[in-house]
Amino acid sequence: MQVVNTVQQFRDLCRQGSRPLGLVPTMGALHDGHLSLVRQARVECATVAVTIFVNPAQFAAHEDLGRYPQTMDRDLLLLREADTDLVFLPPVAEVYPPDFATTVGVAGPALPLEGEARPGHLAGVATIVTKLLHMAAPDLTYFGQKDAQQVAVVKRLVADLNIPVRVRVMPTVREPDGLAMSSRNAYLSAEERAAATVVYRCLQAARQLYLQGERRRAALEDACRSLLGSERLVRHIDYAALVDPDSFASAGPVVERPYLLAVAVHIGSTRLIDNVLLGP
Amino acid sequence: MQVVNTVQQFRDLCRQGSRPLGLVPTMGALHDGHLSLVRQARVECATVAVTIFVNPAQFAAHEDLGRYPQTMDRDLLLLREADTDLVFLPPVAEVYPPDFATTVGVAGPALPLEGEARPGHLAGVATIVTKLLHMAAPDLTYFGQKDAQQVAVVKRLVADLNIPVRVRVMPTVREPDGLAMSSRNAYLSAEERAAATVVYRCLQAARQLYLQGERRRAALEDACRSLLGSERLVRHIDYAALVDPDSFASAGPVVERPYLLAVAVHIGSTRLIDNVLLGP
Repeated sequence: MQVVNTVQQFRDLCRQGSRPLGLVPTMGALHDGHLSLVRQARVECATVAVTIFVNPAQFAAHEDLGRYPQTMDRDLLLLREADTDLVFLPPVAEVYPPDFATTVGVAGPALPLEGEARPGHLAGVATIVTKLLHMAAPDLTYFGQKDAQQVAVVKRLVADLNIPVRVRVMPTVREPDGLAMSSRNAYLSAEERAAATVVYRCLQAARQLYLQGERRRAALEDACRSLLGSERLVRHIDYAALVDPDSFASAGPVVERPYLLAVAVHIGSTRLIDNVLLGP
Repeated sequence: MQVVNTVQQFRDLCRQGSRPLGLVPTMGALHDGHLSLVRQARVECATVAVTIFVNPAQFAAHEDLGRYPQTMDRDLLLLREADTDLVFLPPVAEVYPPDFATTVGVAGPALPLEGEARPGHLAGVATIVTKLLHMAAPDLTYFGQKDAQQVAVVKRLVADLNIPVRVRVMPTVREPDGLAMSSRNAYLSAEERAAATVVYRCLQAARQLYLQGERRRAALEDACRSLLGSERLVRHIDYAALVDPDSFASAGPVVERPYLLAVAVHIGSTRLIDNVLLGP
């Protein structure tokens, strides 16, 4: 496994690697969700490249950039075990040179939900993903379904900008009690960690209703919200919303095709997101 | 010379072409300025691709999209004579599919001058150029110095987004009386055409002053503006400004290194731009 720090090294090694090349962009603090992406890339690609870069452009000033978990030695060990070929670990100045002035902005799927809760976040994601795709020029790139709106934005910009890459989306990996794996789970106290299972339970409750035939958007969203509201440690619900999985447009009053139920909540000082597709 | 209309055909033929591949993006209505780009590409590249696409995204609602000159048969003849290998002539729907939602926005050099006079124009340029670079994946791409701010924006976004292409900039091609070649010159009446030489004359007047030792920004800009103002058919001066050729930041009160003098004026209903570098 080669670990490089400069764009030029990363670009050169990607170019020299056997094809197909798979790119897995991460912010480090790796967990089984990330590793499921690496494993899938390993199955489908001759060369697997992973990037670890905590991208300042996707954090607002008041957010958790400064305390975002860093577990570099462990990350590299896990990536080696997963048979990664190439790891790109750039310093910030290598990615954002002086006078940097360009933003890839996506309207459509980037506007609601995370777009309202975290202004600028998805533009930061869109910009860094575009940059990484230019550096690596991969045949395939891998994202997790947990960040469903990020997935929709990346698919949209890849299509809109004619970037020649296939976007592969892997299922959310969960803890045994259902909590979606997330680097931010490390922030949770023991008590908060127990409470956090409500995020999965509220999605499952809505899913149960859906499977029993409920199709009214309000009833499905309310089931989700009321369970979240019953958990004392849920400090704030940013959203619990049924949206189109591609456009992220809100569902109509009655859902007649598969929609995504997406939630974002604050438990203590930790913000968690999760989602489930309500469909056959 | 192959002429294709779909992104897929264009992408495939670019991929199959010998390297290096040169891309010359145009909006058609070709003149010697465009052809100088094609000729330079022919010298430097094994495959020369030209795109002709009047990009709606870079015109505001009140601008001249609807009457922009179209001379397709002549354009294709000229490109054939210039030994072009591949021409991409897409319909608008091929470039902007339904639900298109992505914009490449450049701050910095895109903010002043054209950024103020034509809001959205340079973002439209940045977006279409990014798309064309993704479709063709050229080794080199060619732009004319006449559109100096467009050049600065394209260089900025290529650097910022790590797009692996070399941006080549060719000198402005002029009519015998100095008027910069432009597709929009076709809009000028005979009387306006005669008056339009003032755009070159005002740049030369400032250049003369500069060569005589004048270094005060105000004196150089004023010389330019007063000559423009003396021409009865100049309806409005959008700007006459000394700016850094890369950042397009305004010069200080005294210019101590090479700066670009850029002008934009309305002559009748036609908007003309031009520029000259004031330097040794």
